[in-house]
Amino acid sequence: MKRRDFIKKASTGALATGAITLGGKAFAAEPEFKWKMVTTWPKNFPVLGTNANYLTKTIEQMSGGRIRIKVYGAKELVPAFEAFDAVSRGTAQMGHGAAFYWKGKSEATQFFAAIPFGMTAQEVNGWLYHGGGMTLWEELYGRFNLIPTAIGNSGVQMAGWFRKEINSVDDLKGLKMRIPGLGGEVLKRAGGTPVSLPGGEIFTSLQSGAIDATEWVGPYNDLAFGLYKAAKNYYYPGWHEPGTVVETFINKSAFAALPKDLQAIVKHACKDANMDMISEFTAKNNTALNTLVKKHGVKLKPLPDDVLKKLHALSNKVVQEIAEKDAFSSKVYASYSSYQKQVMPWSEVSEYAFMRARKL
Amino acid sequence: MKRRDFIKKASTGALATGAITLGGKAFAAEPEFKWKMVTTWPKNFPVLGTNANYLTKTIEQMSGGRIRIKVYGAKELVPAFEAFDAVSRGTAQMGHGAAFYWKGKSEATQFFAAIPFGMTAQEVNGWLYHGGGMTLWEELYGRFNLIPTAIGNSGVQMAGWFRKEINSVDDLKGLKMRIPGLGGEVLKRAGGTPVSLPGGEIFTSLQSGAIDATEWVGPYNDLAFGLYKAAKNYYYPGWHEPGTVVETFINKSAFAALPKDLQAIVKHACKDANMDMISEFTAKNNTALNTLVKKHGVKLKPLPDDVLKKLHALSNKVVQEIAEKDAFSSKVYASYSSYQKQVMPWSEVSEYAFMRARKL
Repeated sequence: MKRRDFIKKASTGALATGAITLGGKAFAAEPEFKWKMVTTWPKNFPVLGTNANYLTKTIEQMSGGRIRIKVYGAKELVPAFEAFDAVSRGTAQMGHGAAFYWKGKSEATQFFAAIPFGMTAQEVNGWLYHGGGMTLWEELYGRFNLIPTAIGNSGVQMAGWFRKEINSVDDLKGLKMRIPGLGGEVLKRAGGTPVSLPGGEIFTSLQSGAIDATEWVGPYNDLAFGLYKAAKNYYYPGWHEPGTVVETFINKSAFAALPKDLQAIVKHACKDANMDMISEFTAKNNTALNTLVKKHGVKLKPLPDDVLKKLHALSNKVVQEIAEKDAFSSKVYASYSSYQKQVMPWSEVSEYAFMRARKL
Repeated sequence: MKRRDFIKKASTGALATGAITLGGKAFAAEPEFKWKMVTTWPKNFPVLGTNANYLTKTIEQMSGGRIRIKVYGAKELVPAFEAFDAVSRGTAQMGHGAAFYWKGKSEATQFFAAIPFGMTAQEVNGWLYHGGGMTLWEELYGRFNLIPTAIGNSGVQMAGWFRKEINSVDDLKGLKMRIPGLGGEVLKRAGGTPVSLPGGEIFTSLQSGAIDATEWVGPYNDLAFGLYKAAKNYYYPGWHEPGTVVETFINKSAFAALPKDLQAIVKHACKDANMDMISEFTAKNNTALNTLVKKHGVKLKPLPDDVLKKLHALSNKVVQEIAEKDAFSSKVYASYSSYQKQVMPWSEVSEYAFMRARKL
């Protein structure tokens, strides 16, 4: 490349190596690519929001500053639930959320977020990266000019906070619970009343008795939210969200405009962030659980077996109905459920059998 | 930077941006950094060896070819168990193995690989990335001019292949089993005879009855190895290796010579590879388990509870003895075991309780 071309390309922004490093020290060049990331969480929301910061910082560091991504919390640029459309049309280049928020686009999105009585984090990542899941997800989001991928997982969540004890299936009848999505639909079929509430209203509604129960995430987020002050019974396991995938979606044209090395950086930074989030949740949930039980006197209780069995049977129906919505949802359901059917016997003799052996 | 300087720096290799990309298309420049990676596995060994290929390819792609790493299988450059020293002295810049191979350097290495009745993949990654584990590991390897990190995990392994049934603790007495490391020591204390055998001799030894049993990895690797032809009883769970960390170690000076963006690329590529390996093992083990049971008539059996209890008690002693070797091992033991003690109640109400609920 001639110097004249070098300068010309640099000035038009077409020279892809924006950061020139000398002796290992990068000097702050203006980034070649300035992206915006819209998120469905409040800015810096613990783990879910901070993961967006971690991800964008990783991308910036690996690219030597050639790509810089500014993170916008929910409502800062667009409202939370407009993030998908905003990235689809290019208002922002990247989004950070969870696929079940977009079920209005396709019911199939839910398989890429959380399925009641579905797969755990380790299982679902096997499906996504090595079981055909990612290809289906790309096909689905591709229709909306988006490229999706996983950037985190919550692990098994908690069933939630309940003002009264749940001792039988009958106790679900008439239960007013803040529980969104498929879990809410399952509760409805069990005789309960799922309530939709914005995050900011959950605590006061539970405290006043306007609702009888709420699910949120897991010990770390629940502790920060102070939910233990409003209800003392903390039930497990989170049958409705056993390994919720947290996602990013990237504007296809913006991604295509990146040179191949930056494309690889963005792609692999997401997989790194996926490993980071489940590790962070695991580390922080265990400390928070300890605090909740030992310091705040929270009563940790398992949902009774007959309640779980009932919820499981209802969940199977609810999930199967997604498959009946359209041909593509049916295809994703088939892939997800056949993978789950096969991975469960393996999890049973590996992770489950070991954890059982360890506590004998 | 003046053109003269640009050319000069390019020719001396001091210009850190080796790959210049135009319109998104990289043209093949000579890599700025040519590294060698020595591994403790045969070249292209399924998952463990192919992960090294995946990792180095990721680094190459993210760096736009500025760093190229050639992978050497065991014996190609140095024998498997000399990889640590080879990277320490700079014969190679990077190594790929498992920390328990280096227990001759320090007993503490074993906490960064596998601990009988220790932590699962998800738990150990929480400890490494968000629980202080990585800092201790870096301190340990730093003494040897190395930077360590995790690049994979096997998940819970299988207990192994047995010619005869194990029905009680007595059946462990006199059992000749190929089982290395801490697991072998535990078996010895239970009255068995741990045998050390190179990979190539395991199959014939088991088939001829020279050994009564062997552990290997999990269904995917075990199937490829044909072990089902030599013994029909396939026991679970792998109490001795519940979440074996696979590692890389990087020559400190070689890493320091990289510009910051390439350092970030190497570091984050490892975390990406860590996510990839556990996902690949999960996906492939489940398919292989199915083949072993349905096609090859393998008898899948749980170790009896009293055998597991006995092995657990012996394991606790063996692991505690590591802590008594030296001050640093004691520090790592304290960190590992206090983290495990705290994470177990969380795993119990999350992953374990959910997997239990799912199969009611």
